[in-house]
Amino acid sequence: MTDLKNIKAFAFDVDGVFTDGSVLALDNGDLLRTFNAKDSFSIRTAVVNGFPVAIITGGCSESIISRFNSLSIPSADIYQMSKNKLPDLLHFCKRHNLDISEVLFGGDDVPDAEALKAAGVGICPADACVECKEAADIVSDRCGGKGFVRDIVERTLRSQNKWIFNAEQPWGFSYKDEVNAAQFKTGRYVD
Amino acid sequence: MTDLKNIKAFAFDVDGVFTDGSVLALDNGDLLRTFNAKDSFSIRTAVVNGFPVAIITGGCSESIISRFNSLSIPSADIYQMSKNKLPDLLHFCKRHNLDISEVLFGGDDVPDAEALKAAGVGICPADACVECKEAADIVSDRCGGKGFVRDIVERTLRSQNKWIFNAEQPWGFSYKDEVNAAQFKTGRYVD
Amino acid sequence: MTDLKNIKAFAFDVDGVFTDGSVLALDNGDLLRTFNAKDSFSIRTAVVNGFPVAIITGGCSESIISRFNSLSIPSADIYQMSKNKLPDLLHFCKRHNLDISEVLFGGDDVPDAEALKAAGVGICPADACVECKEAADIVSDRCGGKGFVRDIVERTLRSQNKWIFNAEQPWGFSYKDEVNAAQFKTGRYVD
Amino acid sequence: MTDLKNIKAFAFDVDGVFTDGSVLALDNGDLLRTFNAKDSFSIRTAVVNGFPVAIITGGCSESIISRFNSLSIPSADIYQMSKNKLPDLLHFCKRHNLDISEVLFGGDDVPDAEALKAAGVGICPADACVECKEAADIVSDRCGGKGFVRDIVERTLRSQNKWIFNAEQPWGFSYKDEVNAAQFKTGRYVD
Repeated sequence: MTDLKNIKAFAFDVDGVFTDGSVLALDNGDLLRTFNAKDSFSIRTAVVNGFPVAIITGGCSESIISRFNSLSIPSADIYQMSKNKLPDLLHFCKRHNLDISEVLFGGDDVPDAEALKAAGVGICPADACVECKEAADIVSDRCGGKGFVRDIVERTLRSQNKWIFNAEQPWGFSYKDEVNAAQFKTGRYVD
Repeated sequence: MTDLKNIKAFAFDVDGVFTDGSVLALDNGDLLRTFNAKDSFSIRTAVVNGFPVAIITGGCSESIISRFNSLSIPSADIYQMSKNKLPDLLHFCKRHNLDISEVLFGGDDVPDAEALKAAGVGICPADACVECKEAADIVSDRCGGKGFVRDIVERTLRSQNKWIFNAEQPWGFSYKDEVNAAQFKTGRYVD
Repeated sequence: MTDLKNIKAFAFDVDGVFTDGSVLALDNGDLLRTFNAKDSFSIRTAVVNGFPVAIITGGCSESIISRFNSLSIPSADIYQMSKNKLPDLLHFCKRHNLDISEVLFGGDDVPDAEALKAAGVGICPADACVECKEAADIVSDRCGGKGFVRDIVERTLRSQNKWIFNAEQPWGFSYKDEVNAAQFKTGRYVD
Repeated sequence: MTDLKNIKAFAFDVDGVFTDGSVLALDNGDLLRTFNAKDSFSIRTAVVNGFPVAIITGGCSESIISRFNSLSIPSADIYQMSKNKLPDLLHFCKRHNLDISEVLFGGDDVPDAEALKAAGVGICPADACVECKEAADIVSDRCGGKGFVRDIVERTLRSQNKWIFNAEQPWGFSYKDEVNAAQFKTGRYVD
C-alpha cells in the first residue's frame, strides 16, 4: 500500500506542506507564501520525468498560480478554495486517467484527512494535526516547509530510477517578459 | 477559574500571539505580519461553531483588518491602537452580552497584563514578558506564532465537543474580487 | 564601567541587532527589515521615560526612517550610511549634551567595534563577529533580533526604576493618515 | 587542493547558499529573497580587497541583480537562469583570466555538483543535497543562509591577511537616487 514504486502522480496541499504554514498578510487580504528552492527543484524534476502534480489548497491567490505554473504545473491541476480535498483529488485522477491508488497525497490539517486516507500513499509532515497523523500511511520526520516535499518526491523518484537531472532540458517559466528583461542585464549577455 | 468548558468567546492580542512578534517594516511606516494557517483554521472553526472572537491590538494596519475579516471576524470586533487592553475587552463583552468570566484572553506583553488578570481564562505564550506570566492563569508551552492560538482554541472547542469541521460550510472571504479572478484560472474551472 | 544605572541614552546598530541580519531584497535595490514587537515596546518605553535613542546603521532605506520615527525617534537621531559608527555616536552625544560614558551602544559587526569600545557600556549579541565580542563590555546571551534589544533596554530601565508603562500616555505615530484611515474601520468606531 | 591561501576569486550559487532556500512568491511570478547582512559585509570586503565574485543562479529576478550590484558585483559577473553551473563558472574564469583551480565555488543542489567538483575549492553548506556533499572538497558546518558565505569568505581572506576593513573606503551603492532621498532626512543632515 505504501510502496513508492507504484506511484505515478503527486498531489499536495500548500500551507503547512510546501510552507511552514506562514502567510504574509497584505493590505488587500491577499496572502503571500514563502516556498523552498529544494522543494521546487524536486517538483520540476518530477514533472520533466513524467509525473503529473496536483496542487489542492484552501487558499486562493494569484501568487499560488504563478509559483506552480513556473514549476511546470498547468493551471488545470491547481485546485484553489478547496475545503474537502478528496473530491478535487478524484477530479485530478479522472483528468489524468489515474487510479487513486497510484497517487501520493501530502497534507497537514483537518481538511486533508480524507484525502490522506484515500490516496495510494498518504503522507503528512511531522507537525501535522492529529487527524492527519491518524489518517496518513506515513508520518514524515520532516516538518512542513522544512524539506518535507523534497524528501518524499526525491525518495519516490529514486525508487523508480527517475531522479534524473538533465541540464540541457529547459525548465518551464511562466513569467517570460520579466525573465527576459532581467536575463539580458546579466552574465553571458553583457560582455 | 481556568475551566475551558465555560468559555463562550475568545479575545487575542496580535503581535507575539498570532505571530512571533515579527513585523515587516515598509517604506510608508505600515507593518506587515506573518500569520499561520493552522491558527487561522482554528479561528474559523471557532467562529462557525458559535464563538465570537475579538482582536485587541496596539497595532494599526489595513492588513490586520483584511486578515481577520477573511477569518470571519467582523471589523466591529477588531480593536486597533489599543494601549490598555482591558477597556476594549470589556467593550467587546458588552457588545456580545458576555460576562468577562466567559471569555478567554491571550496576550504576551505589558499592555496585556490587566486583561489577562480580568479574563475568565488568561493565557500567555511561553515567551511572554514576566508581567504577563505573573498575570496569566495559564502559561502555554507554545511560543507566540508557533501554534499558541491553535492549541488553546482547539483544546477549548474539544472540551465542549465543538471541534467540528464541516466541508460543506463555506468560510467567509472578504476579498471577493481578487478571489474570483484567481479561482477562475484554476482547477475545476479550466478543464 | 558596565553599570547600567549610569546610562542616560541608548545607541543601536540595526542589522543583526534589532534583526537577525535578514534583509528582504526588492527589485529596486531597497531592503526591508523584520523588526520585533517586544523590542519596539522597549524603545518606546525608553523614550517616554526620558532616554534619547540613536540609530546608527550602514543601511539606507525609507523603511528604516519610518519604523524608528514611529517608535518616537526623531530623524535627527537616525544615522544612515554610517561606516564607522564612532564619529556618529560622538555626534549624537554632542547633540544631546551627553558624555559617551553615559551611553549604551549595541552592535554586532566589524564597523561597530570601535563604538563598542568607546561607549560607557558596549554590548553585542551572542552571534556577533569576533571583533565585536572582543571590543564589548558585555556579550549578551540573546542573538540579534531574538530579544537582544528588549533585554538590555528593559534591564537598564529596571535598574533605574524607569520600566514604567502608562496606558494613558500616547505613543508617537508618524504615519498619521494611514493610521486614521484604518482605525475608523475598527473596534470602538464601528458600533 | 583545498588550500584557501591559493584562492583568488569566489563564485556562489544563490538559493540555499546566501539564503536558506526560501523564496517569497509574488503575484507576477517574481521571487524575493532574504539575504543576511553579515554575508553581505564579507562579499563587500572581498571585492574591495581585490577578489572578483561571481553569482551563478538558476533564478532570474531584478532583485538578484540589484542586491549583488549593491554589493559591488558588476552585472557581467551575475549569471542567471543557469542550469549547469560549470560552463558559467568557466566563462567567469576566462573573463577574469583565472584558472579554475584559483576559484572557490559554493553551491547546494544537484545543478551545482559539477562546478563543485571542478573548482579549486568546492564547498557546500551542511544542508546541501547528497550529490553536492559527495562532490565538494569541504562540507561546511553552517547551513545555507545561516553564516555559510560569511564563514568561508572570512576564513579565506584571513588566511591571506586580507580581512581588512577600511572605514574611509566607500561601499558601492547601485540605487543612488533612493539612497540620496533617504539619507538627507537623517542623522548628520538634519541638525
